[in-house]
Amino acid sequence: MSEKANVVVVGGGPAGMTAASRVKRFRPDWRVVVFERSRYVSYAPCGIPYFLGGLAKSIEELVHYPVRVFTEERGIEVHTEAEVVEAGEGYVRARFKDGTERTYEWDKLLIATGARPRIPRIPGTELKGVLTLRTLESAEEAKRTLSQAERVAVVGAGYIGLELADNLVRIGKKVILIELLPHVMPTLDYDMTALVENELVRNGVELHLNETVKEATGNGKVEKIVTDKGEYRVDAVFFATGVAPETALAEMLGVKKGITGAVSVDASMSTNKEGVYAAGDVAETVNLVTGKPDWFPLAPVANKMGYVAGASLAGFKETFPGAVGTAITKVFGLEVGRTGLTEERAVKEGFKPVSATITANTRASYYPGSTRMTVKLIADGSTGQLLGAQVVGADGVLARINALSVLVAKRATVREAFFSDLAYAPPFAPVWDPVIVAARVLLGKLAQS
Amino acid sequence: MSEKANVVVVGGGPAGMTAASRVKRFRPDWRVVVFERSRYVSYAPCGIPYFLGGLAKSIEELVHYPVRVFTEERGIEVHTEAEVVEAGEGYVRARFKDGTERTYEWDKLLIATGARPRIPRIPGTELKGVLTLRTLESAEEAKRTLSQAERVAVVGAGYIGLELADNLVRIGKKVILIELLPHVMPTLDYDMTALVENELVRNGVELHLNETVKEATGNGKVEKIVTDKGEYRVDAVFFATGVAPETALAEMLGVKKGITGAVSVDASMSTNKEGVYAAGDVAETVNLVTGKPDWFPLAPVANKMGYVAGASLAGFKETFPGAVGTAITKVFGLEVGRTGLTEERAVKEGFKPVSATITANTRASYYPGSTRMTVKLIADGSTGQLLGAQVVGADGVLARINALSVLVAKRATVREAFFSDLAYAPPFAPVWDPVIVAARVLLGKLAQS
Repeated sequence: MSEKANVVVVGGGPAGMTAASRVKRFRPDWRVVVFERSRYVSYAPCGIPYFLGGLAKSIEELVHYPVRVFTEERGIEVHTEAEVVEAGEGYVRARFKDGTERTYEWDKLLIATGARPRIPRIPGTELKGVLTLRTLESAEEAKRTLSQAERVAVVGAGYIGLELADNLVRIGKKVILIELLPHVMPTLDYDMTALVENELVRNGVELHLNETVKEATGNGKVEKIVTDKGEYRVDAVFFATGVAPETALAEMLGVKKGITGAVSVDASMSTNKEGVYAAGDVAETVNLVTGKPDWFPLAPVANKMGYVAGASLAGFKETFPGAVGTAITKVFGLEVGRTGLTEERAVKEGFKPVSATITANTRASYYPGSTRMTVKLIADGSTGQLLGAQVVGADGVLARINALSVLVAKRATVREAFFSDLAYAPPFAPVWDPVIVAARVLLGKLAQS
Repeated sequence: MSEKANVVVVGGGPAGMTAASRVKRFRPDWRVVVFERSRYVSYAPCGIPYFLGGLAKSIEELVHYPVRVFTEERGIEVHTEAEVVEAGEGYVRARFKDGTERTYEWDKLLIATGARPRIPRIPGTELKGVLTLRTLESAEEAKRTLSQAERVAVVGAGYIGLELADNLVRIGKKVILIELLPHVMPTLDYDMTALVENELVRNGVELHLNETVKEATGNGKVEKIVTDKGEYRVDAVFFATGVAPETALAEMLGVKKGITGAVSVDASMSTNKEGVYAAGDVAETVNLVTGKPDWFPLAPVANKMGYVAGASLAGFKETFPGAVGTAITKVFGLEVGRTGLTEERAVKEGFKPVSATITANTRASYYPGSTRMTVKLIADGSTGQLLGAQVVGADGVLARINALSVLVAKRATVREAFFSDLAYAPPFAPVWDPVIVAARVLLGKLAQS
């Protein structure tokens, strides 16, 4: 027996639910069916470290809207704990919690399957106490494991790894942070990550850089983590070793993937298959600095892609312009922001980067709470185009990285950045904002280069 | 006896000292002479309220660099307490502290005379205890007066008036704030100023709107302030009734003034007189939204104008693009930011404004310290161009107003604002940033209009 739906959305994360909601707003009489593997929809996995650290009190707080809002208020048909096990032209087959399966014919389909943790293929990852964080259910399991753990290894020092380290220290754990690369945070240049590394060590994190995890060992439950340089007794291990686009459904449908490995879409979020769209962490977009396809598995990008996909699914014209990979995180007392290309990446992309790094006060020097902030700006030596920026400080980083994000996305030059009309008042900024100071120094360097 | 200088700068404020420093950097062998009326150069009058409120401990803290830095390190000839009493083609005559006068011939002259307080012409302003704040010396006098004052009237509810009210309450004064207009902060729309007015009243400020000050009375020392609606016993009165460009020198030189009353300059900061430049609060610039001349007496604009004037004076090509009037202030627990045109102003400028105002969380809802923020965006109904923005909240306003400032200055549309790649992480923003939410709502309104 087969059902009919106007739109099927696979994946109930931010992109999927934004898209589904928007379709119903445009087309209230359409049948919109969402299949979500987990128990939750519209969840924010990026909140999981804060749940583990006790700042979010319950899993429910990480859910933007309960299922009821989508079903009752918005008229969307939502199936949680439902997995799409088969898909082809014009249909999907879903398996439900109770083991039954049903086929749905669709006019349009949205692939919003997100990303999955990328875990190294090493022995021992099946042991109890070895954790990854992608679904909210995994967070509940992690919290139970942590309640009996003293020493915790975090493998991977990207955003999630660092946020985990911070939150685990907050709840009194001994944290061993292991990173394959010579530095934390691969989305920043090394001169800036040094500031973050100092902050980790200052807060008691045992930091192992340039170290490859070989094995987790233990008797049923993880007891030790073995690397190429040593072994460490642990009660739990988190793998925060990055994510990869979850493309299984795309493959079933024969949808084309792009150079990044994520699903290739045009600005309307259409794939190469008629009637099939993709949005969120499963899909590529355009990097506004390079003009090339890139992959930004970040929630705000996913949401906006979902917004565009919703209009497209409903038959309206809408386009997603692309992104610049703006991100921010808090590592103990440090705020760390980045946008656009790193200096290293700029070289790879064929630019001739020139950069300037300055340290300046975040507020008028006499104003209480003024701290020091480091700003790095990267520009192309030939054109003066601002390619990227990184900001690290105790306070006020969001204000600078957001302004820089807009400048980078607009392909502004360093001189345009310098003349930005940023706000000033003693409680907020010095009269020469750190961004303006950095642009001034970089202008000087560009004039000489 | 007449001296010769390559460049004479009149006014040692931010614009003048930035320009003088830059000339010496380009032309180390030129003689650059600065005349400054007060005892200080490179001062920040915007810091005075914080000095009165005890946050800045001394007047010296409000000075960016002491005179010595300019004279010894940068080789600039600085005359403080020196007034230009006469000026004409190729010369100025300065009167020094000791009463002597000297004539200087110049090749190029910079008018950086700033702005002066605009005080209503009413009886009693000569009384002791009636204060204005423009020079650092006036701050010292004000501090002495305040030490014996309990009840203080602040006349004028612009940035300085509000910052004064805040700081005076902090040091235990009873503050009576009197404003001629029906609302505080004329650079914001009324719907947003209502939030500020509530905050003032909540913090014990006695707020009188729509009230005209008629007279200050007292026996040698001010004792009462009389308005069209009542009279109030006071021990001191601050006039924070705005500023006007200080154009006396410009008039002596026959320099043309613009429609705003400030000196008219081109993008290189040249006036209509050969060899005569103007920068800082005395000069007009271009409003990037309207494309017309406008006047922004704000320190960051003044500094950048000085930067451009310095290059021009030295014979190099540099241009100032204009500004959008971005500003921020803190009023007790509220942060208030604005950029571009208000809705009211947009109408006057011939736009057909459509606006959206939303209230949203400043961080992930579960994250400690998340508060509510109100964002108002104003766009042109015909083109969708973002014309202006106002943001009021307990926290995180700088991050939003800076991004909006860049968008407004770049003449971005509301849809471009919506697709801005603003940074997200639970400690800093919700996944849909308040700016993005406001843009989304405004997009909906524009679609209907």
